Amino acid sequence: MAAALSVLAADAVEAAKSGHPGMPMGMADVATVLFTKHMVFDAGAPDWPDRDRFVLSAGHGSMLLYGLLHLLGYEDMTLEEIKQFRQIGAKTAGHPEYGHAKGIETTTGPLGQGLANAVGMAIAEAHLAARFGADLVNHYTYVIAGDGCLMEGISQEALSLAGHLRLNKLIVLWDDNGITIDGKVSVADRTDQLARFKASGWATLSCDGHDPDAIDAALTEAKSLDAPVLIACKTTIGRGAPQKAGTAGIHGAPLGADELAGLRKALSWEDDPFVVPDDIVGAWRAAGTKGRAARSEWEARLEANGQKEALTALFSGDTSSAQAAVLDYAARLTTEDAKPVATRKASQNVLEVINETTTLTMGGSADLTGSNNTKTGATSPFTADSPAGRYLHYGIREHAMAAAMNGMALHGGVLPYGGTFLVFSDYMRGAMRLSALMGIQVIYVLTHDSIGLGEDGPTHQPVEHLASLRAMPNMTVLRPADAVETAEAWAVALGHRTGPTALALTRQNLPLLRGEAGGENRTARGGYVLAEAAGAAATIIATGSEVEIAVDAAKQLEAEGHAIRIVSMPSVDLFASQDETYQQQVLGTAPRVAVEAGVAQGWDRWLFAFGGRGAFVGMDSFGASGPYKDLYQHFGLTAERVAETVRALVKREDA
Amino acid sequence: MAAALSVLAADAVEAAKSGHPGMPMGMADVATVLFTKHMVFDAGAPDWPDRDRFVLSAGHGSMLLYGLLHLLGYEDMTLEEIKQFRQIGAKTAGHPEYGHAKGIETTTGPLGQGLANAVGMAIAEAHLAARFGADLVNHYTYVIAGDGCLMEGISQEALSLAGHLRLNKLIVLWDDNGITIDGKVSVADRTDQLARFKASGWATLSCDGHDPDAIDAALTEAKSLDAPVLIACKTTIGRGAPQKAGTAGIHGAPLGADELAGLRKALSWEDDPFVVPDDIVGAWRAAGTKGRAARSEWEARLEANGQKEALTALFSGDTSSAQAAVLDYAARLTTEDAKPVATRKASQNVLEVINETTTLTMGGSADLTGSNNTKTGATSPFTADSPAGRYLHYGIREHAMAAAMNGMALHGGVLPYGGTFLVFSDYMRGAMRLSALMGIQVIYVLTHDSIGLGEDGPTHQPVEHLASLRAMPNMTVLRPADAVETAEAWAVALGHRTGPTALALTRQNLPLLRGEAGGENRTARGGYVLAEAAGAAATIIATGSEVEIAVDAAKQLEAEGHAIRIVSMPSVDLFASQDETYQQQVLGTAPRVAVEAGVAQGWDRWLFAFGGRGAFVGMDSFGASGPYKDLYQHFGLTAERVAETVRALVKREDA
Repeated sequence: MAAALSVLAADAVEAAKSGHPGMPMGMADVATVLFTKHMVFDAGAPDWPDRDRFVLSAGHGSMLLYGLLHLLGYEDMTLEEIKQFRQIGAKTAGHPEYGHAKGIETTTGPLGQGLANAVGMAIAEAHLAARFGADLVNHYTYVIAGDGCLMEGISQEALSLAGHLRLNKLIVLWDDNGITIDGKVSVADRTDQLARFKASGWATLSCDGHDPDAIDAALTEAKSLDAPVLIACKTTIGRGAPQKAGTAGIHGAPLGADELAGLRKALSWEDDPFVVPDDIVGAWRAAGTKGRAARSEWEARLEANGQKEALTALFSGDTSSAQAAVLDYAARLTTEDAKPVATRKASQNVLEVINETTTLTMGGSADLTGSNNTKTGATSPFTADSPAGRYLHYGIREHAMAAAMNGMALHGGVLPYGGTFLVFSDYMRGAMRLSALMGIQVIYVLTHDSIGLGEDGPTHQPVEHLASLRAMPNMTVLRPADAVETAEAWAVALGHRTGPTALALTRQNLPLLRGEAGGENRTARGGYVLAEAAGAAATIIATGSEVEIAVDAAKQLEAEGHAIRIVSMPSVDLFASQDETYQQQVLGTAPRVAVEAGVAQGWDRWLFAFGGRGAFVGMDSFGASGPYKDLYQHFGLTAERVAETVRALVKREDA
Repeated sequence: MAAALSVLAADAVEAAKSGHPGMPMGMADVATVLFTKHMVFDAGAPDWPDRDRFVLSAGHGSMLLYGLLHLLGYEDMTLEEIKQFRQIGAKTAGHPEYGHAKGIETTTGPLGQGLANAVGMAIAEAHLAARFGADLVNHYTYVIAGDGCLMEGISQEALSLAGHLRLNKLIVLWDDNGITIDGKVSVADRTDQLARFKASGWATLSCDGHDPDAIDAALTEAKSLDAPVLIACKTTIGRGAPQKAGTAGIHGAPLGADELAGLRKALSWEDDPFVVPDDIVGAWRAAGTKGRAARSEWEARLEANGQKEALTALFSGDTSSAQAAVLDYAARLTTEDAKPVATRKASQNVLEVINETTTLTMGGSADLTGSNNTKTGATSPFTADSPAGRYLHYGIREHAMAAAMNGMALHGGVLPYGGTFLVFSDYMRGAMRLSALMGIQVIYVLTHDSIGLGEDGPTHQPVEHLASLRAMPNMTVLRPADAVETAEAWAVALGHRTGPTALALTRQNLPLLRGEAGGENRTARGGYVLAEAAGAAATIIATGSEVEIAVDAAKQLEAEGHAIRIVSMPSVDLFASQDETYQQQVLGTAPRVAVEAGVAQGWDRWLFAFGGRGAFVGMDSFGASGPYKDLYQHFGLTAERVAETVRALVKREDA
């Protein structure tokens, strides 16, 4: 059965003239034992919530996964798809792409991400198991990881988090083949991986990755241990290839005719490319349906269990009640009783409402809980001893936090949000990109969103981050201007099911601009007219903390007789998705000044749209260390400068 | 003497009403022993190349460093600067900023970066020592790192690299205080750090971080060991504060009057804020000049050594001969003998010239040597046993590679360049930002720069990365269109001493467009007219691999009677820094079409500049897996679509 995986992978790479045959060939034995003897799943019901999860963290070995899914009988992984490996439109992309086919639990390829996704899946499992009981939630998360996954820094963050949380249903199979692209692992590393994992509370095992009995025994033992488990599977990359096995040469290139023929000989495989003998297919198909009974029994237990409705609701991911509660909360914010409040704090106030209304949310922070304001009364810490908790102390591990949140979202039954400073989105950008690429609901709470954080200085002050996150396809960035917009932004984030949302929030206090907001979520349109002015001489567009500056500038200008329209644009992304009529109506025909405490990149689009003209007031360098009001003055982010810019434009207009 | 550091830090934070007193107070004893008994330096000659380096990786404890520099007698760290802690324009920024004052060896604050910088410094030291001998190069790199540094993933990449390379002159003092912002370290971690470091080949020691003799003994032993050394210094954060010592409450906030008074009492410190008794100042100043003799002796050895000129040349960082060689090479590329070549391969050809011409360069790759084409004939691997080598196999460690390169550049004597795929710039963005913020010369070789990489699919295809790197202040991005522009781009990178350069290079072959280039480096202007056309109906602007498309589109349009000007814009950043006259002359007055295999963000600026109008042809989503020519077709990055876009604009113009 394992030979089928090897040959299928080698043939598919050969046909595509591109791909990575070495890993599937080296891990075919391990994968065969895992899927035929240990994994509990039903190929006919790939969405069964209590299935074991499988993550191919070494995503370049995608043909291993495609071969498995095809042979096990997953309906949409046809032989035709295998033949179309790495062609446009095929489900069999170069690396596994979540959503392309059932059984692909996550998108992998960027190394280390899958391992960290799996930590998130195991967190979700442990959490839901604690709430619903082992009758309804009781499954393992298995990972195949390579040397590359273990060398990436994210792996350390992920493994130390998993060890700390004692995620004993997480089992990692390390493809210990001693080879990377540049040659032997010893070219660049001498780490004793077992000792390293042990140092963070993991159990470790070793086995010959080509001995089915040894693999089976290791997996059996792993399931009995009260810790996450690393199994070092000693393997030969590209096993069976006569010349290239055990070398870097087989990692990422087709075998070529001679090696392929040699492989067939070594494995006694006589069939043509893409032909698998019926008896072998039959054995694999049987493995694919082996879990059907377990699934039926689970369904019977679910019916008999009083919690069916609650569990189903969580897995539906429905957030409508929370959205309604948030908008209701926003509508009750009145100018009368409003004290200035930082949007990070306003966000916490909203989270109090959300976390009381729904138990879907799981919050957290990368060791900035008190700064990100992500913890609420309803969310006690998730720990090894109390996994029912809904708050994660992720530690100083931004990258693993983001990747674990991806895993939680992919697992289902929970909606993850997590905080750090906006500037440290750089540390987790690799994982944020995967949230966007997979189109999954993860909410990033990014506080301290400008030079407005003050004294911590340029290392902590984001300047280019709004632009760089907006540049990412399918990443929705929201930067609210006050408590009402913050609530509306959260309502958007809760309702946005097809991609991640990044909330950029201030450290510094801001006045309430939208008291008595009424029912409509204006933030959801991305940009809107905050203050209309008949016959406006200019439009000032601003986001977040700079809307206050726009309002002040408008006051100065109005005192001079210039009518000014103010546009609040909490989300450039959402505004870009509105129809042109609306966009044009909001932007108007008068000269435009945009103001934001970030770089100009991207703003020309809205200054010049529909034949417009205008200017930008913002940052064109890194920030500095100092009290935030001094910094705003120093960098010219002031009402005076905005007003001056408007005057210059209006004057040019009149000339 | 240590009390002076504690009180100075507490007073400065109190005066600033902001800052992190806990770490300086907790590590004052360790720092005092280190600087008075072990560090070899001369406060009067802070640039002495053979000084020991000190890196405060836990950068939030900046007042520890400022206090040290002031007390040791570094000229520009005056008492006035200490009093101005965290104010605009002060050298005493919230976190240590490289360039603000002598003795600040690197900018720290984003956790883990300093540790990885130090690995780069130790690499540079080992390399230069191997080439010039211990008489001229023989110094230690000391680091103070906190729990946060060790929890960040970058620390694993850095420590495993250091262990592999057996950097035995790297000594890390871990401030083992058991506290992070969210509370005790045990809230989020249970890692046995000593075991973890040992697993990667480090030696480890422990000491009571408040016992000067124990600290001294540990440092003495550390210097005798043939491995990088981690010393766990058991400390109490905020030591001396009566209530807050040992708690998260003292990490990042002023002590307040009562605690400050208690601290003075505990340390028997009777002086007013910012007053240090003369005898204590005297003792510190003596420590600051203790290394003067060692420095003089070194200078005498340098004079007597035949290698003075060579070493001085390296530390000057002069690259003029390499620049000249590269431009000379470029001038010899002729259309006649030009076969299509990928710019990554063209880059390697240029590197062959560079690495033969100068021995300043140290290359490397994060396990993609054969793909990034970063290795050349003249550069053998740097290993533990042959540190004279000039090529680093960084392993699958992008973040540590970038941060180590920062450290190498900061150390001086070497010019680092390193490769990975452009998409994985996301993994090292935190360190790239610090290259830009510090304004140091680091060259990033980022290959596989678009969907043109083909089958590996969207996880490997950069789409937003050109925009997101261009958004970063002081990051110069170059995307050459052919072998000539690639050489010119390298000449720019070599000459750009005040910041990092990112070279975006193709996987796929491109034709030579600029044969017989002549002497002028046209790429250095960022954008230039590649093909002029009298009375042009439109200007097509393109970068990198899309210039070929622009040329093809122009041919189609010219066949229809439309004269087309083609602008090649290898660097939007450099073009933005030209004077407006030149910009206007290049862009012209005809309608403009920009084409780039990336997102539109940023292009509107150049389409609309100087009253222009135009359209963009590029990507508005993630890529896909498939052969690259199919992908270009699929996403409409074709000459036909560009021509069609031009026609539509010209038609509108005529209407």
